[in-house]
Amino acid sequence: MATANSRRQEWSISGHDFFLDLGAPRPAGIRRRIEDSLREAIRSGRLGHGALLPPTRALARDLGVSRGTVTHAYAQLAAEGWITGLQGSGTRIAVRHELLPLSRQAGERRRRWRFDFRHGRPDPSSFPRREWLRASRHALASTSDAAFDYGSPEGHLELRLELAAYLARARGLRVEAPQLIVTTGFTQGLGLVARALGASGVRRVAIEEPSMALYRMILRAAGLEVVLLGVDERGARIEELDRVDVGAVVLTPNRQHPTGVLLAPERRAALLEWARSSGGLVIEDDYDGEFRYDRRPIGPLQGLDPSSVVYGGTTSKTLAPALRLGWLVVPEAIHSRVRREKALADWHTSTIDQVALAQLLRSGDYDRHIRKMRLRYRRRRDVLVKTLQGLDRDLDILGEAAGLNLLIRLTDPAVERAALASANAAGIGLGGLAQDAFYERTARGGLIVGYAAASEHTFAEATTALAQVIANVRL
Amino acid sequence: MATANSRRQEWSISGHDFFLDLGAPRPAGIRRRIEDSLREAIRSGRLGHGALLPPTRALARDLGVSRGTVTHAYAQLAAEGWITGLQGSGTRIAVRHELLPLSRQAGERRRRWRFDFRHGRPDPSSFPRREWLRASRHALASTSDAAFDYGSPEGHLELRLELAAYLARARGLRVEAPQLIVTTGFTQGLGLVARALGASGVRRVAIEEPSMALYRMILRAAGLEVVLLGVDERGARIEELDRVDVGAVVLTPNRQHPTGVLLAPERRAALLEWARSSGGLVIEDDYDGEFRYDRRPIGPLQGLDPSSVVYGGTTSKTLAPALRLGWLVVPEAIHSRVRREKALADWHTSTIDQVALAQLLRSGDYDRHIRKMRLRYRRRRDVLVKTLQGLDRDLDILGEAAGLNLLIRLTDPAVERAALASANAAGIGLGGLAQDAFYERTARGGLIVGYAAASEHTFAEATTALAQVIANVRL
Repeated sequence: MATANSRRQEWSISGHDFFLDLGAPRPAGIRRRIEDSLREAIRSGRLGHGALLPPTRALARDLGVSRGTVTHAYAQLAAEGWITGLQGSGTRIAVRHELLPLSRQAGERRRRWRFDFRHGRPDPSSFPRREWLRASRHALASTSDAAFDYGSPEGHLELRLELAAYLARARGLRVEAPQLIVTTGFTQGLGLVARALGASGVRRVAIEEPSMALYRMILRAAGLEVVLLGVDERGARIEELDRVDVGAVVLTPNRQHPTGVLLAPERRAALLEWARSSGGLVIEDDYDGEFRYDRRPIGPLQGLDPSSVVYGGTTSKTLAPALRLGWLVVPEAIHSRVRREKALADWHTSTIDQVALAQLLRSGDYDRHIRKMRLRYRRRRDVLVKTLQGLDRDLDILGEAAGLNLLIRLTDPAVERAALASANAAGIGLGGLAQDAFYERTARGGLIVGYAAASEHTFAEATTALAQVIANVRL
Repeated sequence: MATANSRRQEWSISGHDFFLDLGAPRPAGIRRRIEDSLREAIRSGRLGHGALLPPTRALARDLGVSRGTVTHAYAQLAAEGWITGLQGSGTRIAVRHELLPLSRQAGERRRRWRFDFRHGRPDPSSFPRREWLRASRHALASTSDAAFDYGSPEGHLELRLELAAYLARARGLRVEAPQLIVTTGFTQGLGLVARALGASGVRRVAIEEPSMALYRMILRAAGLEVVLLGVDERGARIEELDRVDVGAVVLTPNRQHPTGVLLAPERRAALLEWARSSGGLVIEDDYDGEFRYDRRPIGPLQGLDPSSVVYGGTTSKTLAPALRLGWLVVPEAIHSRVRREKALADWHTSTIDQVALAQLLRSGDYDRHIRKMRLRYRRRRDVLVKTLQGLDRDLDILGEAAGLNLLIRLTDPAVERAALASANAAGIGLGGLAQDAFYERTARGGLIVGYAAASEHTFAEATTALAQVIANVRL
């Protein structure tokens, strides 16, 4: 709390802020009032176990009382066992209240798998901590004071220029900085586009089945009706678009999630033709396009028709999901609406993180990291596929040419359930096409094997354990 | 693009990713095809001015052609003036295309004021760069690998425990970690709560007038009808709530924005009584409660009735708006709905930034920075008020007891317009109650003077310049 002007200088001395309401003056006297208010604060749990009390000198100054009064009050509370450590390390609350049990409630109740083959995540142990710290240091040292003020909803220009050059060079996009909108990931990006579409009169959108159930929830939360688009070996069945009246399509053409199939060339052409003739929008989720292990490059749809495609990219697979950094490449026609939705959502993304990412791109560390991880993931892919083939069973494997996971298709969801149960018993984290909460129930079953998340040194062992489960799957 | 398995090892050598589509084989031969595809990429603007081309060795490997072929292609393009710098620093695109003019479009078109008295922002030059870097280094060094995976929508437990202890100690809240939801700022927080309210059947909410127009846009975007609550010298007119049927009230009780008045004690009691009797929710925006210069502490409403109040806090005024970090303290009854909205909005806030803030709190650097800035802002407040009083005019000044701005009330919006015009002519950034786009038009006028944004060394000069403007305002 503040002090009278005369005590202004003393403000900067007292170690940390501390709120104490002594209530109305009572005959009890100031010392009793200090004791009572502290007891009440501890009893109520407002001051938790271990919480630091201000030094007697500081509190005395803040309250405008003599230091002796506060010292006596502390001593009394210490005698009663409420607080401890009058000397040295500072005075702390000694009484345990209900914070700890509640903290457990607050904790992530995630199961820690012995072998982690869950998909949709990179190797968390591979995050380039040193490079990110170096980029952050550069960002904090190089950024102008003005950059610490509120920024632009579309993102920091420095990052948008670097991203535009990178996406054109590495992903073959037709993009310049003004088209880019920096997001906190594709989850946010999809929501922004969905609300922008709703605002521009779109009522219905199509999305692949299977696909992330979260994305449907986001589309529906934006007031849009969701139509499901079938997926086969050649990707989303674009021809189905002729039978439904939708204003946009959300899909993963460069690697269908989670089947891993590539949208076939003639279907790409048909999709863009649909967009041009119907005026519909294509929302291209390029979630892991950086990871391809075969020879042919896959040019995102955006590079073929920038005016019909909203392109969404992310650092969640290339760096880490924990970073929450992504981008949208948005056609002129809807750009201002999407920008407005970003402003309403959270005004803009952290400028410091944006400048750090710009520096990571500029320094080449981003490219180097992707190259390194592409090598590592391909080796894992090879080990996994070789091991599965070694089982000498007629496994129906899809999507091993790229990305961070492959799919073992099963004819019957019941077989998938049984396989997941035995994987579970073996301490193996694994995804199922029919079981996985991420997807709507599908007629067929399938095991989604993510090979990025497991730690490098246990990967061989993990693969062996997985093989034992697969070996016993009834086909 | 990827190479054949036989070239796998060479992948990690080539400096950076590069996308080049040679199209179908043509009699022209591979060298011509490389030249043509590069020309096309530059002409179309896909490869921007200054963009780096891969080393000839790397591109040759990626394309599976001889290095000589690529070298000749580069030489030809250099001869034509498309690219430069074949030796040393690498080969870059030499041709300027339309990126640069467009970059200007993309740039923030903000006016740089000679003297910045705009409100709603702290001193951007005061951001504790060293302390934040230290906290980030600690976060990157101390965080477990698992923390780089997807996190929890409600936020990282480590930060929520630190925040709960801090908010109880420094702001007098009744809060424990499980009630906290980490956000990217109050802008996002308000949107999450608004959508959670809509999902729980609330149709109408009240908000103070004047207040940020952005907040109304957010409430309306969530499908809520907005009712305006009058503000006088004792804060929001709570009694008006009896005449409207609203499910929640959004307000700034600890320092009404932008008038700076404090919600009077009896109105605080009446507001909480309204909440208890009607089951309505109070959304408390404590945007700069850390900055009070007078003696009495202001306990946020949340500390009086945690079950009726959603408390929103932010680092935008204590550290920097560019950080995009804030928090909500949410009552049990609506917590899971708000958490769900956070998951749909962006899944969670950057874990690395969360751990860095936790460390800043733990180390005491956060407290020290606030104390230091409180001293600095109070000195500025004193200089400003003294200077204005020195004008010896009958100025109606409000809200100087706390926060980062004060209000000079004017009876007539026309007077405000004239004052803002002369401030503008003097290169002074200033806010107006009736003019400012942030607020709905109000009958009365007023000048909102923010004294935090101006740089420390120019503050005296800036104050003098402002005084000259104020001296000529027709009252």
